[in-house]
Amino acid sequence: MFSSEGVSVETLRWRADTLEMIDQRALPERVVYISYNSAQGVAEGIRSMVVRGAPAIGVAAAFGVALEALRCQHLPKAVFDQTLEHGIELLAASRPTAVNLFWALRRMRIVWQSGQQESNPALALRLLAEAQAIYDEDIRINRSMGQFGAELLADGARVLTHCNAGALATAGHGTALGVIRSAVAAGKRISVIADETRPFLQGARLTAWEMVQEGIPVTLITDNMSGHLMQQGQIDAIIVGADRVAANGDVANKIGTYMVAVLAQRHHIPFYVACPLSTIDLTIATGEQIPIEERAAAEVLGFRECRWAPNGVSVRNPSFDVTPAALVTALVTEKGVVRNPDRDALASLFL
Amino acid sequence: MFSSEGVSVETLRWRADTLEMIDQRALPERVVYISYNSAQGVAEGIRSMVVRGAPAIGVAAAFGVALEALRCQHLPKAVFDQTLEHGIELLAASRPTAVNLFWALRRMRIVWQSGQQESNPALALRLLAEAQAIYDEDIRINRSMGQFGAELLADGARVLTHCNAGALATAGHGTALGVIRSAVAAGKRISVIADETRPFLQGARLTAWEMVQEGIPVTLITDNMSGHLMQQGQIDAIIVGADRVAANGDVANKIGTYMVAVLAQRHHIPFYVACPLSTIDLTIATGEQIPIEERAAAEVLGFRECRWAPNGVSVRNPSFDVTPAALVTALVTEKGVVRNPDRDALASLFL
Repeated sequence: MFSSEGVSVETLRWRADTLEMIDQRALPERVVYISYNSAQGVAEGIRSMVVRGAPAIGVAAAFGVALEALRCQHLPKAVFDQTLEHGIELLAASRPTAVNLFWALRRMRIVWQSGQQESNPALALRLLAEAQAIYDEDIRINRSMGQFGAELLADGARVLTHCNAGALATAGHGTALGVIRSAVAAGKRISVIADETRPFLQGARLTAWEMVQEGIPVTLITDNMSGHLMQQGQIDAIIVGADRVAANGDVANKIGTYMVAVLAQRHHIPFYVACPLSTIDLTIATGEQIPIEERAAAEVLGFRECRWAPNGVSVRNPSFDVTPAALVTALVTEKGVVRNPDRDALASLFL
Repeated sequence: MFSSEGVSVETLRWRADTLEMIDQRALPERVVYISYNSAQGVAEGIRSMVVRGAPAIGVAAAFGVALEALRCQHLPKAVFDQTLEHGIELLAASRPTAVNLFWALRRMRIVWQSGQQESNPALALRLLAEAQAIYDEDIRINRSMGQFGAELLADGARVLTHCNAGALATAGHGTALGVIRSAVAAGKRISVIADETRPFLQGARLTAWEMVQEGIPVTLITDNMSGHLMQQGQIDAIIVGADRVAANGDVANKIGTYMVAVLAQRHHIPFYVACPLSTIDLTIATGEQIPIEERAAAEVLGFRECRWAPNGVSVRNPSFDVTPAALVTALVTEKGVVRNPDRDALASLFL
């Protein structure tokens, strides 16, 4: 029902009244799509990281609401409303840090509330149309961010990225990798250095895969190597995505981002954050108030069927950290580049 | 032939005229010893990381020379000398960064040269005695460092360590973990936070295992988490080992150490380096001149039989990095604690 033209990797797609999501746990070895028909299913897909990346989570959640409405459209109105409410609550509880999730659910709720006079089937179609609009907007926004951000990267730049803020983290094109894609499309020779990003290995599995697919040179390193490469003068710029940006410009992003940002400051390397406005949370004053998800110990004890840690060890597994705004050279948004982000600069984006 | 009393983990042991080394690639799942009878075998054991850790590499190399002498003792003197020379060269070429290797080979060469008038069998026994002396000294030195260093850790301290500078990295007790062991023995309640230390996972496999064996509380994290924990006020001190310390106090240690040190400085957390004098290389002025080993790509593409990176990706795999002396709060040596290490302080250790 919606177009995915020009999208190199289809993170989510709509097929025969179901949402299909590429299983990001199986990449890059296997390209498998899983079908979803309910809010509960999509919530579980988000929780278990079939889909991940703040913008993609937001899009998936919007489709989750639409799926729930379609699934229940023939039930009595009161039951329909109750089921939809429950579905939205399940989706909201799936992951705590990425604010796009709550942003997308709010948009879906507004459509729902504005359509209280409509039949369930008519409302379900309106919700589906809204989810599709969020999907389409996400790609448009990423392309816009890409164009603004591409200006920041010099021809020949060696660009470090952490985690995956690529097509797989969005409806398509990507935020941080979108900027790199746009720079390459503009004729710049960019090479990417990808942090592997333990424990889920989004860099080694997803970013590396996306770059290899497109023929953009990519060098994989472990997360503890970027400081050494910066010290050796082998990194020219850093660009990452974000899961939530506080009103003052503090950035919550994948665990390890903060260490990269501190090293970048020491070595006078620009540190850019690509984030759509949907990732900026003006209701939260500073990064200290952003909830940081702590995930299961098993992720740190090994990877997939490989387990390497001994029994008897405790584990910490915070999934995100907060980089203070002072370490951010610029935010790249769909409205332009915000240098030295602060409260006033962020507020003005929403005027 | 030599005592390993009081050594909780036997990294190396002498049995029936062979050197047995615990296979550190198989830990913690399997405790397997591999037997060595020649310099070439030991060199290959060092290269392939059956044994690793600067002091343990030095001890292993010393035994490698003794084994070669024992193996060839019945050959004519000229052939014996030629074979021994070749064996020492093989050992010296096994790994480039840890200076203890060259230090131990130099000691063995001095014994060899001073015994030119002796019979081959007599010389071989003298070389074996020297290797045993290096082994015994290493444990004594570690205990001495442990006592000095334990003073630096407060009761209740949460201590981060990177890689494995434990019993497995030495003849026994350990350097950085030796300090922790000594603090615990002195009645302090220490808890350890272990960086997993990709790509070889020395932290997850070896440090965690050593601590679990001894009932010292240990929490495993991925390498990109320590900055977040420091920001959250959850780390009180950091202690690591070293592979080579330059004359000015710059420290080469496992890749990732530099990033930890930079974050420690930002958060005013003391950063200690435990290193015996055999790790200090006064012939090298600064850390920039320390050769940094680059290992095989396969280590970064996955771990053991698990491979998670896509084909077509490039890899960097520097095994060490250099932490400038200015980031080091103190060196812990067998001669005492050296605060704010610099050229003069290091030189005075050798007076």
